[in-house]
Amino acid sequence: MNQEHTQQKTTIVLFSGELDKAIAAFIIANGAAAYDHEVTIFFTFWGLNTLRKEELVRTNKGVLEKAFGWMMPRGPQKLALSKMNFAGLGPQMIKHVMKKHNALSLPQLIELAQEQGIKLVACTMTMDLLGLQQEEMMDGLEYAGVAAYLGDASQGKVNLFI
Amino acid sequence: MNQEHTQQKTTIVLFSGELDKAIAAFIIANGAAAYDHEVTIFFTFWGLNTLRKEELVRTNKGVLEKAFGWMMPRGPQKLALSKMNFAGLGPQMIKHVMKKHNALSLPQLIELAQEQGIKLVACTMTMDLLGLQQEEMMDGLEYAGVAAYLGDASQGKVNLFI
Amino acid sequence: MNQEHTQQKTTIVLFSGELDKAIAAFIIANGAAAYDHEVTIFFTFWGLNTLRKEELVRTNKGVLEKAFGWMMPRGPQKLALSKMNFAGLGPQMIKHVMKKHNALSLPQLIELAQEQGIKLVACTMTMDLLGLQQEEMMDGLEYAGVAAYLGDASQGKVNLFI
Repeated sequence: MNQEHTQQKTTIVLFSGELDKAIAAFIIANGAAAYDHEVTIFFTFWGLNTLRKEELVRTNKGVLEKAFGWMMPRGPQKLALSKMNFAGLGPQMIKHVMKKHNALSLPQLIELAQEQGIKLVACTMTMDLLGLQQEEMMDGLEYAGVAAYLGDASQGKVNLFI
Repeated sequence: MNQEHTQQKTTIVLFSGELDKAIAAFIIANGAAAYDHEVTIFFTFWGLNTLRKEELVRTNKGVLEKAFGWMMPRGPQKLALSKMNFAGLGPQMIKHVMKKHNALSLPQLIELAQEQGIKLVACTMTMDLLGLQQEEMMDGLEYAGVAAYLGDASQGKVNLFI
Repeated sequence: MNQEHTQQKTTIVLFSGELDKAIAAFIIANGAAAYDHEVTIFFTFWGLNTLRKEELVRTNKGVLEKAFGWMMPRGPQKLALSKMNFAGLGPQMIKHVMKKHNALSLPQLIELAQEQGIKLVACTMTMDLLGLQQEEMMDGLEYAGVAAYLGDASQGKVNLFI
């Protein structure tokens, strides 16, 4: 029996674009990787914003796609909370207590995920819909569709949609 | 070893009543069915609105149930977005870019699901609570409770709650 | 083959703090327990509010933690709906129709879960972040981190994130 058969697979679809849900996704993913699971996070719809570069990247887009690009947050530092956002005060409070308790911030959790070899996959179909282009996204991502996700998930036992 | 044992089962609970989440659910479900999984989508709470007929159906209901019926969207064309809804502008934008990119619309995704033999199950307990009656729902559905869902899910590996 | 190998494991992460999602989580959990699954609900972030005592408990906290404590609902009776909350009218409507249809209320569903031996686990890391202390939480809970959750989930087939 080789390693292939014994290593657990874990997948997370990150659909939501909120700070608290992204933190939960990366804490579970990093925990699973620490227990030697092979982990994939598949980013789709608003979850894709977690992976955007913070700086504005010049791209050649249609008007609607530009509008989506402007309205959506650029990267992990810009995400709102799903509850008690209070026009941006809530995320500051959460970031403050996380630092106080020595919890890793979302950018640090993403870095740790990449160090642990967690596959970060951006859904190409929803990137098209929202007009996101690869130059706007952080480095080290894979780009794939729902077939790739199902390939991983159907070999896993812990498959979450967040 | 017969077909029974080799066919993967995939289940999705669609709890949410938003357009973007319903689209994600049906894209994953149709993808899994294309890979020959046996797929069930179990619609509960607000997810049930995805399956309502667009036209007003006359029913005999209590006042509260009537109130729920009026306030909830009737069918896939009327769902809002979970983000950037902008009083209905967001869904129009999404529908526009989906058409532009030749992506299937939600009504088309539902039709494809039915053609592929995906089981669409409406949760009878929450239909009772929200006062929804079978005459208000689209054709070709099954009606069952949480026991039926668990029967399918406990044989599956990809079990999502959306 | 002993019981260990044949009993199904089912886990739910309850991240959300809304009445309707908590009801859905406990209906699925109680259903699974009735079918003899070994069930764990892991409460994290806003889901922790489901387990708070209704009465105000005096604790010694920092200012930010006190602020979170004041702003978050205390216990199952105080949760809002994810949709159609209407400043608290929605939850009253749902509670009313649930009583009318003889459905168990959320506090009753929690009690049933405890009677059926469902493990209710509060996430210690997010309790720290939100400043929640064990004295504020209902009796009969376990306290653990993401490692404990992954231990259970990786032996289960039905693993949901709600």
